[in-house]
Amino acid sequence: MAEKTIAVLTSGGDAPGMNAAIRAVVRTGIVKGFRVLGFMRGYNGLINGDYMEMNLRSVSDIIHRGGTMLYTARSPEFKTEEGIQKAIETCKENNIQGVVVVGGDGSFRGARDLSQRGINCIGIPGTIDNDIACSEYTIGFDTAVNTCMQAVDRIRDTAQSHDRCSVVEVMGNNTGHLALHSGIGCGATCILVPEVPYDLKKDVVGRILSYQGTGKKHFIIVVAEGTCNTNALAIQIQALTNIETRETVLGYIQRGGSPNAKDRVVASQMGFRAVELLAQNIGNRVIAMKDGKILDYDITEALGMQKPFEMDLYNMAHDISI
Amino acid sequence: MAEKTIAVLTSGGDAPGMNAAIRAVVRTGIVKGFRVLGFMRGYNGLINGDYMEMNLRSVSDIIHRGGTMLYTARSPEFKTEEGIQKAIETCKENNIQGVVVVGGDGSFRGARDLSQRGINCIGIPGTIDNDIACSEYTIGFDTAVNTCMQAVDRIRDTAQSHDRCSVVEVMGNNTGHLALHSGIGCGATCILVPEVPYDLKKDVVGRILSYQGTGKKHFIIVVAEGTCNTNALAIQIQALTNIETRETVLGYIQRGGSPNAKDRVVASQMGFRAVELLAQNIGNRVIAMKDGKILDYDITEALGMQKPFEMDLYNMAHDISI
Amino acid sequence: MAEKTIAVLTSGGDAPGMNAAIRAVVRTGIVKGFRVLGFMRGYNGLINGDYMEMNLRSVSDIIHRGGTMLYTARSPEFKTEEGIQKAIETCKENNIQGVVVVGGDGSFRGARDLSQRGINCIGIPGTIDNDIACSEYTIGFDTAVNTCMQAVDRIRDTAQSHDRCSVVEVMGNNTGHLALHSGIGCGATCILVPEVPYDLKKDVVGRILSYQGTGKKHFIIVVAEGTCNTNALAIQIQALTNIETRETVLGYIQRGGSPNAKDRVVASQMGFRAVELLAQNIGNRVIAMKDGKILDYDITEALGMQKPFEMDLYNMAHDISI
Amino acid sequence: MAEKTIAVLTSGGDAPGMNAAIRAVVRTGIVKGFRVLGFMRGYNGLINGDYMEMNLRSVSDIIHRGGTMLYTARSPEFKTEEGIQKAIETCKENNIQGVVVVGGDGSFRGARDLSQRGINCIGIPGTIDNDIACSEYTIGFDTAVNTCMQAVDRIRDTAQSHDRCSVVEVMGNNTGHLALHSGIGCGATCILVPEVPYDLKKDVVGRILSYQGTGKKHFIIVVAEGTCNTNALAIQIQALTNIETRETVLGYIQRGGSPNAKDRVVASQMGFRAVELLAQNIGNRVIAMKDGKILDYDITEALGMQKPFEMDLYNMAHDISI
Repeated sequence: MAEKTIAVLTSGGDAPGMNAAIRAVVRTGIVKGFRVLGFMRGYNGLINGDYMEMNLRSVSDIIHRGGTMLYTARSPEFKTEEGIQKAIETCKENNIQGVVVVGGDGSFRGARDLSQRGINCIGIPGTIDNDIACSEYTIGFDTAVNTCMQAVDRIRDTAQSHDRCSVVEVMGNNTGHLALHSGIGCGATCILVPEVPYDLKKDVVGRILSYQGTGKKHFIIVVAEGTCNTNALAIQIQALTNIETRETVLGYIQRGGSPNAKDRVVASQMGFRAVELLAQNIGNRVIAMKDGKILDYDITEALGMQKPFEMDLYNMAHDISI
Repeated sequence: MAEKTIAVLTSGGDAPGMNAAIRAVVRTGIVKGFRVLGFMRGYNGLINGDYMEMNLRSVSDIIHRGGTMLYTARSPEFKTEEGIQKAIETCKENNIQGVVVVGGDGSFRGARDLSQRGINCIGIPGTIDNDIACSEYTIGFDTAVNTCMQAVDRIRDTAQSHDRCSVVEVMGNNTGHLALHSGIGCGATCILVPEVPYDLKKDVVGRILSYQGTGKKHFIIVVAEGTCNTNALAIQIQALTNIETRETVLGYIQRGGSPNAKDRVVASQMGFRAVELLAQNIGNRVIAMKDGKILDYDITEALGMQKPFEMDLYNMAHDISI
Repeated sequence: MAEKTIAVLTSGGDAPGMNAAIRAVVRTGIVKGFRVLGFMRGYNGLINGDYMEMNLRSVSDIIHRGGTMLYTARSPEFKTEEGIQKAIETCKENNIQGVVVVGGDGSFRGARDLSQRGINCIGIPGTIDNDIACSEYTIGFDTAVNTCMQAVDRIRDTAQSHDRCSVVEVMGNNTGHLALHSGIGCGATCILVPEVPYDLKKDVVGRILSYQGTGKKHFIIVVAEGTCNTNALAIQIQALTNIETRETVLGYIQRGGSPNAKDRVVASQMGFRAVELLAQNIGNRVIAMKDGKILDYDITEALGMQKPFEMDLYNMAHDISI
Repeated sequence: MAEKTIAVLTSGGDAPGMNAAIRAVVRTGIVKGFRVLGFMRGYNGLINGDYMEMNLRSVSDIIHRGGTMLYTARSPEFKTEEGIQKAIETCKENNIQGVVVVGGDGSFRGARDLSQRGINCIGIPGTIDNDIACSEYTIGFDTAVNTCMQAVDRIRDTAQSHDRCSVVEVMGNNTGHLALHSGIGCGATCILVPEVPYDLKKDVVGRILSYQGTGKKHFIIVVAEGTCNTNALAIQIQALTNIETRETVLGYIQRGGSPNAKDRVVASQMGFRAVELLAQNIGNRVIAMKDGKILDYDITEALGMQKPFEMDLYNMAHDISI
């Protein structure tokens, strides 16, 4: 009789800590008696049967690496019934009873579709944007927050030396979580996010001019992508305050780098939990963090949740950045 | 009539993020209409009337600095009634109605003593050891965990190149929280902490030899200070495994460095909350984190709490480090 | 009789290590018996008499800080005879016999103009671009090279996870020194600089496709600003190779950050040497590095030099990035 | 006829940048038409025929990794004629005409012995200690200097917060190069090295007390290993100055970490040069840096050279650390 087998793959945008999740899935799986296969480039690997057999040493020395050793991709083909059927075929051929998918909402929809067709799937939230509704934390967020913050720490040096205003655009996939936490961390004068409307003259220019009156000479404005045109914003601020203003779009540096401790620890916990569920023959669940603890939800239920924006934290941030 | 005044000081061992807490206290205090004084070198500053008057700009460009701009010290004099009376004298002279103390348990006992004599005091937990019972998080912990982990990431390079075993001692003030989180983060083969008894032959040597059988050639053992003599441990491991074993005591690098985002954010939240309490004329409280949220406890109650060790996390760590 | 006095200022764009140079000038000056004044915001400070009196402790704990504690600016007024005369007036009022100017070519022209009017000036090359002809090294270059390289190390993680091509634009003030060294450091497939013409199809697309044939799936292209439109380049590469291509402009993060050891050491050496010259009543010189050693040149002579581009290194870089 | 083949190995203590050297040797070798073999664990691999065949992709994504992908070891067996003969046997069997050895003086003696027996060997200086006489620079030095310096930057935070003196021991293999450069970089009050005798009372305690008189309250003493007992030194300093003094031995963190740009660039240059020599059928040479340029020496001649200590830099360091 064929050996009981589980699969692991990473899907969607990469995030620091995905390797730690893969490592936990592989090791926990092997300890629990599973054969473990790592599928390459997300659902594409499942469709094409592109995998590597994993042993304990396959995941040695990866916990501290950014990116994902299994590569990642978005898979349009998997959104078709034909693609899903190919994936199921691959699972049957390899006697795969369960699949762990590390990714975002799109990846979870795929995991739900597979689960509904009889392959137990467990989703693990992995994205730097922390924009998955069911979980207060997603793997990669802490590393990205610190990457953004340290980048702004550098920009601050030159803004300060030149008495300038710096407008810094960070990622977030049209949410403000990354901007909020990195903005507090770098002591930004203003944090602009899609969730909170703002008035340029009052909330940005007014703040700058008012703090200038207290002796402040350099200013940091952190903007979440999708909030506004940051280049236009920088030009407006300079025009309205007469303070030299420069814009930086942080770009892809935010997605890479060795994961911070939190991402390594949480990814380990979530990977471990995912295999525990599969070992109990449970599927169609997504692992999440709530009140700092690891738990799991039905995928459909999870996909229907709404993520609140931390308004108290947002208000506090502006109360002390003066 | 004299202006309403609050004081802030840092006490005990320094921790990254203390400056962010000071900044939040000063700015929130000023916004709420207080005059704010920063006392130097812990309770010694209160005893000797050694302070600086703080304005909005006094705390500019400190959120990203390690250490504490107000310096810190342990104050044996403050443990005497005479010392406390001098401190009360200073408070009265300067019309101080409230004091925010950032530090550990020893500092909170001082805050309780002052509160009992009529000066409202609020404690904020600041220590890299995360060893304060009432709060699941203390300012400085995340930075220290990452510092330890990144140091071990470096040690790993050389351990791996030489097929060695590395024994790394981290701080923790006789608790294993720092060792546990940094040990998981660096994928340590064993994590040894004061809270969990271990058998050298079975739990350390046995594990090493067993994983050696799977092809693993270098090993990391993370040890919390106060668990055992790490030098002797390294010698024993080498004798019993025949693997070249080297010891590193990380030392004071763990206490410094620019604070990570979490420490800056949590310190800001706690400093803000502390002043909110003082503004409501509330004292004898310590700010804490529970289930990821900021709240506060009576100091005496807080000092009587017991901190559980995260045994589930400890067991998971060893299940996947194979 | 008034005390013998020297001044120090930073001018033009800021660079990591400027603080180390200021520190060396102040301390060496004081040890040699000078009173030392730090002028704010470049030549503007000299024009407006805006300075701070420096003592040994004024420059404590700045050697590791990015930016410049004396702030910096470009000074259009100093390019007028009236501006220069105001600066000379300030020098006379304060009995200033010598001025140390840390900056780039524009700053050295100012130093020459002042020297010609009887104020001994010494220039120290400080710019991240390493584009000062007389010196093989300028303060800030090593830090900026490493900042760029580490940023690309992060971008590499995500490029690799997604099998992408990344086009990264770095600074350089229309020279390729920063791109060359950071490009070698990150193992870039191509390094594009203003000094070396290239053919898009042969030198970029051809290389990518050829290495793709050896199994390479992700590519890094480092481009010096002023070489081409990097956004258009990225679009062309994607069109011609069919490899998903993303662009990042590193921006102002390259100018800040704690200086690396080399910048701290060289800045210390150059600051020390500058004051040695002033103490011998020598002016109109610029400090430089040649063959790894510190020496000095006549400013006019230095401004007339041509900086060669390291073509051997450029060719070697492409020989091994395959 | 068998293909022309060259070998590469790393020997002795590991150093950041060794991977960049391996990468340059492999790629340059392949481009020049050689088959390239990577031998494992230094000369032991040569003795035991333990190698991996290298292709262009074998060295992808290693330029930024610390340690050495070929592992390293000291080989007592290679110091015997029998060991050397086994190595020669391996070379003959694999048609190896040339060997590139990255390591220190001990490794070069092995390379000389092999060269004298007809196998062209080229040495590349790789050690964090910069203690190889023929070359002003060794691969790994810049990374180690910065690692030490950044560690002291962290220690400084806590020394400053507590008004303490910190004694920090760095590596150096009984030379002071690493201590000198990292000590200047961190602004150490004293730098103690084996090359320069010192008087505790005058040169250490006297300096501390004298600067204390100018308002300085925290002190950093950087000590090269092999200079004195640092623990005893810390105790003496505290006894004689009455300033709380703490000791940290940096240990193995100094040997690891992602290499800095300089180490990646210089390693690339040296690896490239080494293969150029082998391609011209030249052996028994060691690559070196002189006046910032890459050249090569006869190994015997190189082993007989004396390395001067940079006394001017040492004196300058103490002149400005006041």
